[in-house]
Amino acid sequence: MKINGFVYCSVLASVFVLGFLQESVHGRPLLMSLSRPRPDDAASFARWLVSQSSWGVLNTISSEWGGAPFGNVVSFSDGLPDKGKGIPYFYLTALDPTASNAMKDKRSSFTLSEYNLGTCGKTDPENPSCAKITLVGKLKLVDGNSKEAEFARTALFTKHAEMKSWPKSHNFQVFKLDIENIFMINWFGGPKPLTVEQYLNAKM
Amino acid sequence: MKINGFVYCSVLASVFVLGFLQESVHGRPLLMSLSRPRPDDAASFARWLVSQSSWGVLNTISSEWGGAPFGNVVSFSDGLPDKGKGIPYFYLTALDPTASNAMKDKRSSFTLSEYNLGTCGKTDPENPSCAKITLVGKLKLVDGNSKEAEFARTALFTKHAEMKSWPKSHNFQVFKLDIENIFMINWFGGPKPLTVEQYLNAKM
Repeated sequence: MKINGFVYCSVLASVFVLGFLQESVHGRPLLMSLSRPRPDDAASFARWLVSQSSWGVLNTISSEWGGAPFGNVVSFSDGLPDKGKGIPYFYLTALDPTASNAMKDKRSSFTLSEYNLGTCGKTDPENPSCAKITLVGKLKLVDGNSKEAEFARTALFTKHAEMKSWPKSHNFQVFKLDIENIFMINWFGGPKPLTVEQYLNAKM
Repeated sequence: MKINGFVYCSVLASVFVLGFLQESVHGRPLLMSLSRPRPDDAASFARWLVSQSSWGVLNTISSEWGGAPFGNVVSFSDGLPDKGKGIPYFYLTALDPTASNAMKDKRSSFTLSEYNLGTCGKTDPENPSCAKITLVGKLKLVDGNSKEAEFARTALFTKHAEMKSWPKSHNFQVFKLDIENIFMINWFGGPKPLTVEQYLNAKM
């Protein structure tokens, strides 16, 4: 009976654990659907970090607050799950400062932390071994009737199902970050040298 | 025996759950040591969100990349656990772009998401009911010999123990964000009106 009890126990415990694993990655279906590349493979690592993340902080130049850099929490997608292309797409409304800032000044960056993936354990988020990436470039509106917008909406709605039902009156539109520079730290020794070409052409 | 088995089970399950609760808030000792204020109490809610968070994205104007807004993942503290004063302190090195940017242009913002606290459940991070806050102001170096720096180091090292042992050669120094404007969304209906005075004087 003790053994039965333990088996019963393990099953119940596993259910709890599974629940919290899912919670710990904020409702995404798997904790880690692609394995973590070696930190010295900078291009693959960067693509992994972007493709496995579901949200980050999108930064623009604030027209309202004296040109201050304005960070905003946004969801994003770079493609279908585990099929990301590396270019982050966003679903934004001009009712929000980020989109209206970008209409006036396209300079932007998008910042992600590996901490959100739950793979940094108890390492401090500012420790270089817990990866972080900032994609620097221009935040651009994508023509809503283009093939690219169609791709982006599919990518976004697959990872963020509730976006489909966001209020039409807010006129959400697809934006993309045209990446010009990449800042990534995923180990000790400073930012990893990484060009946009290396990043976009990385094997996943 | 079945009941005993279930009790045994529940205990084991609880141990698992506790473990993952801790993991899900990234090694912080409790999931929620202060209870979540009502969203319409904007000042208390903002102070709660800041005091319960351990890291965020700190934005500066990039001197390297044509004045682009540059977001960087950093740890911070606004005081001892559950005794935060609302002003975020950082431990930065000029080897990192954020500190060197701030030396040239103090305009800055600091962005936090409630998503990191695990209290948004499966709600999308961009959904207004999952709170986000951006503190906009000036990022300033704190005199290392001042009482304020002493307070800040205690606040930082208590929440981020490993900072104490970060390499002396990197010359980490205490910075603070002098808050001038607050952007917070914690429910539907747009940003909550909230002055810096209301924020700093909020009852916790």
